[in-house]
Amino acid sequence: MNYSMIRYTLGWLLLFEAAFFLVPLITAICYLESAAFGFLFVMLISCGVGVLFTYKKPKNTALYARDGFVIVALSWIVLSLFGALPFLFTGATSSFIDALFESVSGFTTTGSSIFTEVESLPKSINMWRCFTHWVGGMGVLVFIMAFLPLGGGHNMHIMRAESPGPSVSKLVPKVKNTAIILYTIYFVLTLIQFIALLISGMSVYDATATAFATAGTGGFGVHNDSMASASAAQQIIVTVFMLLFSLNFNSYYLVLRAKFKDAFNSEIKAFLIIVAVAITLTTFNIVGSSYAVENIWDALRHAAFSVASIISTTGFATLDFNLWPELSKTLLVLVMFIGACAGSTGGGIKVSRIIILVKGFLRELGMLISPKQVKKISVDKRPVEGEVVRSVNAYIACYILLFVASLLLVSFDSFDLVTNFTAVTATLNNIGPGLGAVGPTSNFSAFSPLSKLVLIFDMLAGRLELFPMLLLFSPATWKRKRA
Amino acid sequence: MNYSMIRYTLGWLLLFEAAFFLVPLITAICYLESAAFGFLFVMLISCGVGVLFTYKKPKNTALYARDGFVIVALSWIVLSLFGALPFLFTGATSSFIDALFESVSGFTTTGSSIFTEVESLPKSINMWRCFTHWVGGMGVLVFIMAFLPLGGGHNMHIMRAESPGPSVSKLVPKVKNTAIILYTIYFVLTLIQFIALLISGMSVYDATATAFATAGTGGFGVHNDSMASASAAQQIIVTVFMLLFSLNFNSYYLVLRAKFKDAFNSEIKAFLIIVAVAITLTTFNIVGSSYAVENIWDALRHAAFSVASIISTTGFATLDFNLWPELSKTLLVLVMFIGACAGSTGGGIKVSRIIILVKGFLRELGMLISPKQVKKISVDKRPVEGEVVRSVNAYIACYILLFVASLLLVSFDSFDLVTNFTAVTATLNNIGPGLGAVGPTSNFSAFSPLSKLVLIFDMLAGRLELFPMLLLFSPATWKRKRA
Repeated sequence: MNYSMIRYTLGWLLLFEAAFFLVPLITAICYLESAAFGFLFVMLISCGVGVLFTYKKPKNTALYARDGFVIVALSWIVLSLFGALPFLFTGATSSFIDALFESVSGFTTTGSSIFTEVESLPKSINMWRCFTHWVGGMGVLVFIMAFLPLGGGHNMHIMRAESPGPSVSKLVPKVKNTAIILYTIYFVLTLIQFIALLISGMSVYDATATAFATAGTGGFGVHNDSMASASAAQQIIVTVFMLLFSLNFNSYYLVLRAKFKDAFNSEIKAFLIIVAVAITLTTFNIVGSSYAVENIWDALRHAAFSVASIISTTGFATLDFNLWPELSKTLLVLVMFIGACAGSTGGGIKVSRIIILVKGFLRELGMLISPKQVKKISVDKRPVEGEVVRSVNAYIACYILLFVASLLLVSFDSFDLVTNFTAVTATLNNIGPGLGAVGPTSNFSAFSPLSKLVLIFDMLAGRLELFPMLLLFSPATWKRKRA
Repeated sequence: MNYSMIRYTLGWLLLFEAAFFLVPLITAICYLESAAFGFLFVMLISCGVGVLFTYKKPKNTALYARDGFVIVALSWIVLSLFGALPFLFTGATSSFIDALFESVSGFTTTGSSIFTEVESLPKSINMWRCFTHWVGGMGVLVFIMAFLPLGGGHNMHIMRAESPGPSVSKLVPKVKNTAIILYTIYFVLTLIQFIALLISGMSVYDATATAFATAGTGGFGVHNDSMASASAAQQIIVTVFMLLFSLNFNSYYLVLRAKFKDAFNSEIKAFLIIVAVAITLTTFNIVGSSYAVENIWDALRHAAFSVASIISTTGFATLDFNLWPELSKTLLVLVMFIGACAGSTGGGIKVSRIIILVKGFLRELGMLISPKQVKKISVDKRPVEGEVVRSVNAYIACYILLFVASLLLVSFDSFDLVTNFTAVTATLNNIGPGLGAVGPTSNFSAFSPLSKLVLIFDMLAGRLELFPMLLLFSPATWKRKRA
C-alpha cells in the first residue's frame, strides 16, 4: 500500500474542500448570516490539515489497483467528515451522526435528509447542502488527479474506482483531457439549467441551489415542499434536466463531434424506453387520484417529474407519491433499482448493467436450446469482455448481499417493512426519499444511530459502486505490501 | 422437436395420474363421500386420454436438451390441468382458474390456497390436495422415465430439467438406479414421519395427509388453522421433518454408505447455520410478543417451526407470523428467497446457488486487489465449472426479471406493496403464505384472474427452476427441427 500517496491525495482533497467552503461562505456574507464564522473556521481547519498532509511530496507516485480503491474510499469518507463540520459549527444540528448523515447524503447525491424542515436553516447551510451534490455528482477525485502535479499516469485506477458504470472508457488518450472534457460538459449543462430557471422567474439563490442539486442528481431542496410550490414551467425545466444529467456524458461529447449514431447507443435507447413506459403507465394510473392531478396534463407533468426524479436518483418531489395507487408506487420502487446510465451523475444499478444482465440471461436460454452453440454477449455490435460480464454478476451478487444485510440491521428499529425496504433502496441507490415513513414528505431523522450508520455506509457504497467501500474494510486489502 | 415422444410421455403421465386418483378415491369410499364419483370420472378420463396417447409407440426415442425442457414443462401443465378437474367435478369450486390455481399450488408444493377454509371440504379432496404435494415433491417425470419401456438413455435431459439445483449428479452410473434410490429414501422418510405422527396421537387420516404435505414441503393442511391446534410434540415432529426434507437427498445415500464427510457438505452446513441464526434471532425477537409466546420455550418452538416452514418452503403455520415484530417478519421474508438445499423437495433459490453467488463475489473482490491472480471458484474443495457459475448467474438474472414482471402485473390489483411482494415471493419460491393480505391466516382467493394466472405461472416456473417454463414459451425453442 502506498501510504504516502494516500496521505498526499487526502491532503490535496482537503485543500480543494477548503476552496469549496467559499461557496457557502460567500452566501453567508451576502445574506449577513452568522454561519459565515462557522464556514470560515471549518475552512481554516481543512486548509491547515491539507497543508500539513501535502507538505512532503511522496517519492513513489505509482498506484496499484488496490491503492486506487483505498484512496477513493478514504477520500469520500474524509470529504464527508469535513463536510459534516459546518452543520455542527453553525448549530444546524447538535448530533454528529446527523451531521455526517446529511454530509454523506449530500456528497453521494442521495438527498435523504435528517432535517424535519429546511426553510428555517441559514441560506448558506442550504447552499452548502446543494453544493455538496454538485461536488459529488461528477466525483471530486478524478478532478483533483487531473490537476495534481504528479507524473504518475496511474490515474486510471482512480477513475475506474470513482466513475459509475461497469466499464470506464477514455474519450481521448489522456485521462487528464478526458476529465477536462467531462467536467466542462457538466459545468455548461449546469449553467444552462441555471439560466433557464432564472428566465422562468426563480431567484438567483433558488436557481443556483436547484441547478446544483439537479446537476448532481442529488435532491436536497431549499423549500420544505421540495418542488411542489415551483411553477409548472420550472417543474418541467427540472424534469428535463434531471433526465439530461442521467445520460452518459460521453454521448454529449460524441454529439459535439457529430457522431450521432455512436451517441445514441443502446443504453440511452433502453433508458428512454423505460422512462417513456413508466411515465405512460403512471400517468394513466394517477389521473383523478387526487385534487392535484385532476386532468391528464397534470397527471403527465407529475408522473414525468416523479419518474425522472426517481430514475435519475435525484429525489425531488412535486407531490407525495406515497399516496399514489399501488401500481405507480410499485413502478417507482422498480425504477429506483434501475437508476441512470453509466457515466452520468445518477446512481442505481445503472441501465448498462441491466442490459448485460438481460443479455447474459438470453444467451443462457439460447445455449439451453442449442448447447453446442457458444455465444458471446455483444452490446452495440461490440462484444462485451468476459471480465465485464463477470464483474457485473459479482456486482449484482454484492448488491443483493449488502441490501439484505442492511435491511436486517435497519429492521431492528421496528419501522414497517415498506419503510425499511425503501429506506435501504433509497440510500443504496442514492435516490433520497422512499415510501412509508421515509416518503417524500418525511425524513430520516427518526432512525436509530445504528440504522443511520448502516444507511451512511449504503450511501457511500452506492455512490462508489460497492467495491471500494467493501475493499476498504476487507482484511485482504491490507495484508501484504506489493513491490 | 420429437413430437411423438412428447405425446407418448404425456400419455404415460396421464396413466400414472389416473393411478394417483386412487388415493383420494379410496379415501372417498372409506368416508362414504359422494366425491368418489367425481374422482372415478376424472380417473376414467385420464386413463382414456392416456391410452389414446400411448397407443402408438414412437420410433425415434432420442431426446435433445430442448425436447427435455419442453416435455418437462408440458407434463407439469397437463398434470396440473387434469389434477384440477376433481375440484370442479366434486363441486369444491366452480371456477376453473381457482381449481387450476389449487392444483398447480399442490403439484408445485407451494401450498397457497384459494379456499377460504378447508374443514368443510370433503376429506377426499383434502387428501388429494396433500397427495399432489407428495407427487410433486420429488417430481413425477424422472419417476416415470425410470420405469418407461424405452431404451433411449436420454433421461438425463429430463432429470436435469426437473430436478432442483444448479447441477445434477448421478449417485450411480444409471439414471434409472439413481431415481430408484432417491424415491426409496423419499418413501421411507415419509413413512417414518407418518409413524411418528401416529405415535403422537394423530388420526390415520391426519397423519397421512400431514406426512404427504410435509414430505413434498407443500403446506396444504386439513385444518383451517394449519398446525396451530396440533400438540407441541406434533409441531416438533413436523419441524424436524420439514428440515429433513430440505436437505439434499444425495446426502442420505452417502450417510447410508457411511461417507459421512461427503454427506455433510458445505451446502448442508450453510443451510443449518442459516436456520440456527434465523431461529435464534426470531426466538428472542418474538418472546413475550403475544399470549402464545409467553416464555422462551414457546418462542423457540414457534420460531423453529416458522423458520423451518419458510426455509423448507412448506408453509405450515402454528401462529400468524404476520403479527410478529418487524425484525422477525423481515427475517422470514429473506429466508423465503434462500429456500432449501438442491436435490431436496424444497423450493426457493437454493442454498447451493447462494454459495456460488457469494463465492463468485468474493473471487471478484480478490481479483480487484490482485488483478493478475486468476482464481477459480471451488466448493467442497472441488472446482465449480464455469458453465455452472454462468448458469447460476443467468438463473439469478432471470429470477429477478420474472419477479419484477410478476410484481408489476399483480400490482394492477391494488393490494398493498407488502401483499403483492410477498404473494410473488411465496409463489415463485413455492412457499405458500406471504404477509399482509396473503398471510398465514388468509388466502389467495381475492386476487383477480389475471393475477392468479401470473401466480400460477410463477409457481410452475419456481418448481421447475425457471428455464423449462420460459423455454416452452420462447419462439426460438420451436423454430427449426434438429436432426
